Amino acid sequence: MDITARGMAALFCRNNRQHALRLTDAGEFCYPPSMLRFLICILSIAGYTAAEEGMWTFNNFPRQAVERKYGFSPSPQWLDRVRLSSVRLAQGCSASFVSPNGLIMTNHHCAASCIQALSTREQDYLSAGFQAKGREQEIRCPNLEANQLSEITDVTSRIAASVKGLTDQAANDARKAEIARIEKACTSGDDVRCEVVTLYSGGEYNLYKYRRYQDVRLVFAPEMGIAFFGGDPDNFMFPRYNLDMTFLRAYASGKPAPTDHYFTWSRAGAKEGELTFVTGHPGSTDRQHTVAMLEFERDVILPDMLLYLAEYRGYLTQFQTRGTEQKRISQDELLSVENSLKAFRGQHGALLSTAFFNQKRLAESEFQRKIMADAKLKSEYGSLWSDIEKVTGKQRQHRTPYIHIERQRGLRSRLYSQALRLVRMAEEAGKPNEKRLEEYAEARIPELRQAVLSPAPVYKEFDIEMFTFALTRLREALGPDDAAVKQILGKRSPREIATELIGETKLADPAVRKALFEGGKRAVDASTDSMILFAKKVDPIARQIRKRYEDEFESPDKRLGEKLGQAVFAALGKSVYPDATFTLRLSFGTVKGWEESGRRISPFTIFGGLYERHTGSDPFALPKSWLDARDKVDLQTPMNFVTTNDIIGGNSGSPMIDREARIVGLIFDGNIHSLGGNYGFDETVNRAVAVHSSAMLEALEKVYRAADLLGELRGAN
Amino acid sequence: MDITARGMAALFCRNNRQHALRLTDAGEFCYPPSMLRFLICILSIAGYTAAEEGMWTFNNFPRQAVERKYGFSPSPQWLDRVRLSSVRLAQGCSASFVSPNGLIMTNHHCAASCIQALSTREQDYLSAGFQAKGREQEIRCPNLEANQLSEITDVTSRIAASVKGLTDQAANDARKAEIARIEKACTSGDDVRCEVVTLYSGGEYNLYKYRRYQDVRLVFAPEMGIAFFGGDPDNFMFPRYNLDMTFLRAYASGKPAPTDHYFTWSRAGAKEGELTFVTGHPGSTDRQHTVAMLEFERDVILPDMLLYLAEYRGYLTQFQTRGTEQKRISQDELLSVENSLKAFRGQHGALLSTAFFNQKRLAESEFQRKIMADAKLKSEYGSLWSDIEKVTGKQRQHRTPYIHIERQRGLRSRLYSQALRLVRMAEEAGKPNEKRLEEYAEARIPELRQAVLSPAPVYKEFDIEMFTFALTRLREALGPDDAAVKQILGKRSPREIATELIGETKLADPAVRKALFEGGKRAVDASTDSMILFAKKVDPIARQIRKRYEDEFESPDKRLGEKLGQAVFAALGKSVYPDATFTLRLSFGTVKGWEESGRRISPFTIFGGLYERHTGSDPFALPKSWLDARDKVDLQTPMNFVTTNDIIGGNSGSPMIDREARIVGLIFDGNIHSLGGNYGFDETVNRAVAVHSSAMLEALEKVYRAADLLGELRGAN
Repeated sequence: MDITARGMAALFCRNNRQHALRLTDAGEFCYPPSMLRFLICILSIAGYTAAEEGMWTFNNFPRQAVERKYGFSPSPQWLDRVRLSSVRLAQGCSASFVSPNGLIMTNHHCAASCIQALSTREQDYLSAGFQAKGREQEIRCPNLEANQLSEITDVTSRIAASVKGLTDQAANDARKAEIARIEKACTSGDDVRCEVVTLYSGGEYNLYKYRRYQDVRLVFAPEMGIAFFGGDPDNFMFPRYNLDMTFLRAYASGKPAPTDHYFTWSRAGAKEGELTFVTGHPGSTDRQHTVAMLEFERDVILPDMLLYLAEYRGYLTQFQTRGTEQKRISQDELLSVENSLKAFRGQHGALLSTAFFNQKRLAESEFQRKIMADAKLKSEYGSLWSDIEKVTGKQRQHRTPYIHIERQRGLRSRLYSQALRLVRMAEEAGKPNEKRLEEYAEARIPELRQAVLSPAPVYKEFDIEMFTFALTRLREALGPDDAAVKQILGKRSPREIATELIGETKLADPAVRKALFEGGKRAVDASTDSMILFAKKVDPIARQIRKRYEDEFESPDKRLGEKLGQAVFAALGKSVYPDATFTLRLSFGTVKGWEESGRRISPFTIFGGLYERHTGSDPFALPKSWLDARDKVDLQTPMNFVTTNDIIGGNSGSPMIDREARIVGLIFDGNIHSLGGNYGFDETVNRAVAVHSSAMLEALEKVYRAADLLGELRGAN
Repeated sequence: MDITARGMAALFCRNNRQHALRLTDAGEFCYPPSMLRFLICILSIAGYTAAEEGMWTFNNFPRQAVERKYGFSPSPQWLDRVRLSSVRLAQGCSASFVSPNGLIMTNHHCAASCIQALSTREQDYLSAGFQAKGREQEIRCPNLEANQLSEITDVTSRIAASVKGLTDQAANDARKAEIARIEKACTSGDDVRCEVVTLYSGGEYNLYKYRRYQDVRLVFAPEMGIAFFGGDPDNFMFPRYNLDMTFLRAYASGKPAPTDHYFTWSRAGAKEGELTFVTGHPGSTDRQHTVAMLEFERDVILPDMLLYLAEYRGYLTQFQTRGTEQKRISQDELLSVENSLKAFRGQHGALLSTAFFNQKRLAESEFQRKIMADAKLKSEYGSLWSDIEKVTGKQRQHRTPYIHIERQRGLRSRLYSQALRLVRMAEEAGKPNEKRLEEYAEARIPELRQAVLSPAPVYKEFDIEMFTFALTRLREALGPDDAAVKQILGKRSPREIATELIGETKLADPAVRKALFEGGKRAVDASTDSMILFAKKVDPIARQIRKRYEDEFESPDKRLGEKLGQAVFAALGKSVYPDATFTLRLSFGTVKGWEESGRRISPFTIFGGLYERHTGSDPFALPKSWLDARDKVDLQTPMNFVTTNDIIGGNSGSPMIDREARIVGLIFDGNIHSLGGNYGFDETVNRAVAVHSSAMLEALEKVYRAADLLGELRGAN
């Protein structure tokens, strides 16, 4: 899986909309938000055009470079069609429309939270798979939202005007207020989603307007055993054999949404050496980090995150031994943790590479040299690097309480998250739009409401374990003598508090949450619910910590980010792509293997290899459907394949298309070398991993006999 | 606790006797063994004598430096008396004789494995404490051995002669053979333990001869709630409030061992500024590591170890929620893991300090400059640093399979360890002494026998969990396609294998192990025990991995170690102390607080503070005995205190004495800054933490009313 949950890990915390996105529960495996992103693209300095590197925005795609290399230049019409056929799953994935009736293709792991939410002790769709017989059997996902990018507008000058002449803190507030105003003015009804996106670390601000679908239903999902065959051991590995595919459907007004733009299908798929495009939503990259920021990431952020995830993994795997039901209810949490852990390990490994780091240093010196060689640039930007280093010091100082309390690593519990949303919404609703905490601004209400009202079951037994673990980590990170810790824990142990609060709260019932959400401040003030009372106690502590973090770190960080973005434009122009921000990007590449320790890795695997890898023991056990179909399927069918497309977490579920914009594959992972892609792209070994179009069609036909679905896909041709 | 288990973690793996020591089960939380230790003592270059740094051997104690600073020079008689009153607990701790009748004082956490082994579901001495009424109630510890250092002999020239003119691999074999010969010749009966010790990274080899006591009995232990009050959150912290104390007794021929040398007691203890000595067995330090080795430690070894420990901690804490009995049987494993984790985190933090690293670089350059300035030294030692860097590359290449298979991180199970001992002993017994794997040489048989025959209970439920976890990590570390992993796991999952092997084996019964141990090869060959068969399958794989590691890394590593040790002597003489090797050392220091973020930390805590810190919730809950005694004890009694003595893991249980060699305290920890002490000593903040002598006497009298024990201690005065 990987690309996504990894994407989720990264994007929920890193891109500028972290607070909005954090409204889902998946957001806590993450970096602190909004680290400065500086555009010092090594390759743009060292001779960019030959490389396949780049996650390009649709309004700055290097058509000429592609034409020079492949003799094909995507037309504006081609780009529009691809953009409008592309789908973002707001919780952290990519997808695409694949029929005129709102049919959406994405990864199984992108829909796993929905599949799990729809499952029960008696009917576990995650392990058994799901296939709707007719549309009336399509079930609404309690927690998915699909977005289609309809319009991009440059708002850089509006943002610049709003902060002009202000101090860092005042500018930070003013910038947020202006963003809230822009987003509110853009939004009309629940069907439109508007987001101001920070690109080039603030060198540019764009308003992205989306068609929003909150009624998304599950159509088809294979069994986890084939979707994630090989499990964590094979994750990020290749050769690989995953059918990481799921179909959803967007509904509007209770009916399948008509979708004028959608992708058709190439059964043959792409051949070795063929040009491929990936359209999707890479979550976050740090390729433009300065050396000081990379050192901070290598020495502080990543080790801290890795230790947390490793411990949590151990905790969850042991929790799963309690029984089948406990295994089921904790499965998506464990998958997310394992995936993030492996991804961050790979990132850490990349940063520990001396060769890589020296390359970064070199690129930075080159860029500095350019700035220093020009008197005007020097006076404007000469002190940027030392200023950034100072700001990184501020981050070091304030991040631990911020991450644990405001970002809830130390308060992880589905029910606490719900309580805090209700408490804060009641408070923020009384303020003018532009004064609110940004994730409670008017434009954000639809996703907030979806999160609060979600009918996805909350399992108290598991929530108690989660909360106990988190509170224990909170005490460890800040120390038992920390004032905030003392206020939160009092004289009780983490387990005592978790058991009592979660045992007593009624917030697991969506109707109770609905009453509080709709009852507003009066209802929340009157509530005697244990978790509401607890959230009320924590909220002012968390706000104070957030305020300090924003004032001390985020405010100067944003100013410096904007400044460095401008320095890049001044020195290099706009021949570069911005770091990933969970916005739609297009990458190009080719089907191509690579060399591993002197051995050539072929770009394709086939069904035959899948059956050979089957041992019968989890995670190498094929589901019954596949064992039964062994004699029916063509064992030569391509299963997975790799390309040089430049992707990252968040690209999960992206369609891979050919020059006719036909689907040849479905991105679901990167290889192990792709993990360093967070910091830089190495075309010799960095590979995107996709399910082959033939594999999907062959499986639907021979293994699942999904005639209706196949008909809809083929009818779309 | 800390110093010990930390010591255990470090010493079991790092010092030259790692294989012998690894016969206990505690040895797997560890670094790879025998990393080169190079003597480039920063302080010896920068002006050593003023500092309190140093873990001095008894035959090279800097008496004059102490006299210059404190006006007190320990006489040879003083040193002999202190040495003979000092005790080593062979499993990884320090201790002391405190009466003429074999009474031994050490830390509670040093005896915890014994206390746990003697406990049952019905009678948990770890939580409830233990107090023998009369000697007939003293219970033999199944897994402790006490050593008294009787003689040190220099054998450097014998070792040097044995390897002369040989290639690295041949020299490594010859060196081991010569050590086996020397140790065998020195040993006479089970009462003598002989070990050839590598000092100055091989610049010197000494034969250490010990009086060995394998009959060690539990006399008194307080409750865990006071021994480790504050638990993991307070571990390595100060102010602190632990009564980390236990009394044992050495027996000989079934009677209390007469001990001519023992420490008497100072009730008043030491005052602020007073000179203090610590005599004990620091396990391992890496202060003489080269920069290349430190980088390897920082970037590879420590992150790898930390992630493993973090995950295992999560796994164990969740296992403990299964029930009271499961909590009890996994308690010592969890304590050891938590302690190691916190210690290694501190070490990693120290290595990430730029200031520290630059200091190391500077010291190394200084040393290199001295070597290069002398033509003869240059031709002899000039290429050492680059040679060492190459060897570190070899270590990187071979360590993962070595750690996981031969060192059993990936096979962690008490019953597997027992099976492998039996299989290997059967094999090795048929070889001449000097050809055996070193931990099966004749001189090592007594500790091997003790480990095999230990009546300590093995809990299968827990062993299955431990083994499942380990096998899963094995597969992760080497990958599911690794040949060794495939041989070990076959087509089954880690949990299936663990459940089957441990479910079926009879090795949990000491009588079964005894029969196999005494039956030798014939009995082992005939055994159809599941775990014996499994160990037979793994043994050749593990031996092959070990051989490759030894040939490729250890062999050149030892040669280079010896060479650099000689370079140090040539450039600096012997005015320096060797890195810690779990051999007896003496350090000097003073009672002294320190500054923390501008705040002065007083060197003492008192009983009153302990009662204030009590919350009633674990780990801040005082046992009933202390709550009951609140009105009886003097609340002004000093509880814990800190000094500048230079100690490290393995020093746990060390007596702290004054110039009259009277006990003023009992070392049980270092402060958080002491963790960097593995790499260098910073006298401004590095502090040893001890239980005050008054605290021990006051508690025995007022809380425990241990009249007999007090009488014995006072009679000793």
